[in-house]
Amino acid sequence: FVDSCEPAGGKAIYMVSDGTGWTAEHSVSAALGQFEYCLLNRRCPINTHLFSGVQDMGRLLEIIKQAGKEGALLLYTLADPLAARAVEQACKLWGVPSTDILRPTTEAIASHFGVTPSGIPRGAPGRKSPITEEFLRRNEAIAFTIKQDDGARPQNLNRAQIVLVGVSRTGKTPLSIYLAQKGYKVANVPIVIGSELPKTLFEIDQEKVFGLTTNPAVLQSIRSARTRSLKLESEMRNNYSEMDHVRKELEYANNVFLQNPQWPVIDITGRAIEETAAIVVRIYHDRKQKGALPCISKQR
Amino acid sequence: FVDSCEPAGGKAIYMVSDGTGWTAEHSVSAALGQFEYCLLNRRCPINTHLFSGVQDMGRLLEIIKQAGKEGALLLYTLADPLAARAVEQACKLWGVPSTDILRPTTEAIASHFGVTPSGIPRGAPGRKSPITEEFLRRNEAIAFTIKQDDGARPQNLNRAQIVLVGVSRTGKTPLSIYLAQKGYKVANVPIVIGSELPKTLFEIDQEKVFGLTTNPAVLQSIRSARTRSLKLESEMRNNYSEMDHVRKELEYANNVFLQNPQWPVIDITGRAIEETAAIVVRIYHDRKQKGALPCISKQR
Ligand SMILES: Nc1ncnc2c1ncn2[C@@H]1O[C@H](COP(=O)(O)O)[C@@H](O)[C@H]1O
Ligand SMILES: Nc1ncnc2c1ncn2[C@@H]1O[C@H](COP(=O)(O)O)[C@@H](O)[C@H]1O
Ligand SMILES: [Mg+2]
Ligand SMILES: [Mg+2]
Repeated sequence: FVDSCEPAGGKAIYMVSDGTGWTAEHSVSAALGQFEYCLLNRRCPINTHLFSGVQDMGRLLEIIKQAGKEGALLLYTLADPLAARAVEQACKLWGVPSTDILRPTTEAIASHFGVTPSGIPRGAPGRKSPITEEFLRRNEAIAFTIKQDDGARPQNLNRAQIVLVGVSRTGKTPLSIYLAQKGYKVANVPIVIGSELPKTLFEIDQEKVFGLTTNPAVLQSIRSARTRSLKLESEMRNNYSEMDHVRKELEYANNVFLQNPQWPVIDITGRAIEETAAIVVRIYHDRKQKGALPCISKQR
Repeated sequence: FVDSCEPAGGKAIYMVSDGTGWTAEHSVSAALGQFEYCLLNRRCPINTHLFSGVQDMGRLLEIIKQAGKEGALLLYTLADPLAARAVEQACKLWGVPSTDILRPTTEAIASHFGVTPSGIPRGAPGRKSPITEEFLRRNEAIAFTIKQDDGARPQNLNRAQIVLVGVSRTGKTPLSIYLAQKGYKVANVPIVIGSELPKTLFEIDQEKVFGLTTNPAVLQSIRSARTRSLKLESEMRNNYSEMDHVRKELEYANNVFLQNPQWPVIDITGRAIEETAAIVVRIYHDRKQKGALPCISKQR
């Protein structure tokens, strides 16, 4: 690549929303993945600043002025097209590069469905987020998943939609929480040398079960992440027996997976939690849709 | 508004990503909020279909063909500009309306920082997501927050960054989980008539504490959400005593809040979890930055 990254220190991204700001944050994080090659080696450190609930023109202009002073890029999501246009003009005036990052999506939907966007932001005075089926379902999934964490209540495995099986530190907990937030009831079952897996695990619909694995070096480094800075020579010796133990555990787990070939086994190595989640969810839905073009469908 | 919504049944949105698809899903969900007024009354039911991990041209074209047959709108995030261009052309050919929903953001960043996007999607063969400080911090926050749920371990309140206080069903658990996924260690403390609040709650930094409240009708409906369809006449009578109990509880909680005026009290009524989260996080960061233009800043 032509890497013409400017020197460090100073350039920022301002994310502004009349709502929570989480959409802008999500989009910017994804886009920044395209610049990881220079972000990670600190050749272009980028600072992001998130301004949420900006429904007041005065505050909006204050932020733009500040962006101008700092030489920042302004990325925004504003439901009111008049506010968006005002931002466009103010940014031109003060020399702030800016982009409305959601409008193309909103307009594509408006155009395709022949409906007009309301132009009213979430959380505007008088506007309430309705308590939907989805809202209640997510809360139920989260409550369930928390109770099922780490092998608790094996008698309830059949009530889970997804069951994650793996040795400790294969990401079961953060993954189950991520999936619960998407509305799935998830149970975790830890594989521990010397402990029997709960028999209910083999009595439930086996299509619910997913194995998680990783490589020994990664597992070892995750487990010792907190103590790494405190390693003394004696602990370095412990390090070798830790690695040995880690290898034994993963071998034991792999044998469990060999005995249960219908469980998909996902290697979490080098994967973000959301990436593993996307894989699990895709397999889960593909199994339900047998034959159709595999995807995750939702009725809004 | 001019509501020219087409008749129900049939129009779909296809969301395609070479990655997880979560960015497209998030953006589309936000944009659909602009059409809630006709979505909720079912005048324009919209079906969304999420295709993730699409890194294969063949699969991509198959999806576009299917979109053409179904008359669907295609919204996509593709890191490779050549893939994006191919999609543009295929869509033109088959009459599929389409929008690259992340490219404007990626190009704004590229242009502002003078760096070239890698054009390589996440999860591409050979590409690993690195184990960052942030990754480990989130996992730690999630593990902590799960252990602290519902008043467990009051001796550890001081290790939390945020402490949520409120009667049951004011959204403490889903809110704490949402915040934990953003990297915050959160503890929940339930307010229960007849139970004393843990004294550690008053010994920690009071700027960590946030009260949650709602109105009695909402609280009652959330609590009875599951049993609503089964209400018999005798249960209707119970309904009145439930409402009475709910009012008493909220009154009790409001007194607690009056006695602790430094705790911000957030009304969750009509708010999505992420909206309440944005409010909590904004107050949390504002308190740390005293004076500066309030926002949430991150170094990437
Ligand atoms: N349910 C909704 N109703 C109306 N507008 C919404 C909704 N959800 C998100 N938005 C808008 O979509 C943009 C992104 O939302 P947010 O992620 O909350 O910043 C903002 O302009 C919001 O006002
Ligand atoms: N860490 C990353 N590195 C490279 N590309 C990424 C990263 N995160 C997200 N993307 C890209 O951003 C778009 C949206 O990501 P996703 O939300 O995973 O669908 C896709 O084109 C991804 O390939
Ligand atoms: Mg936003
Ligand atoms: Mg996406």
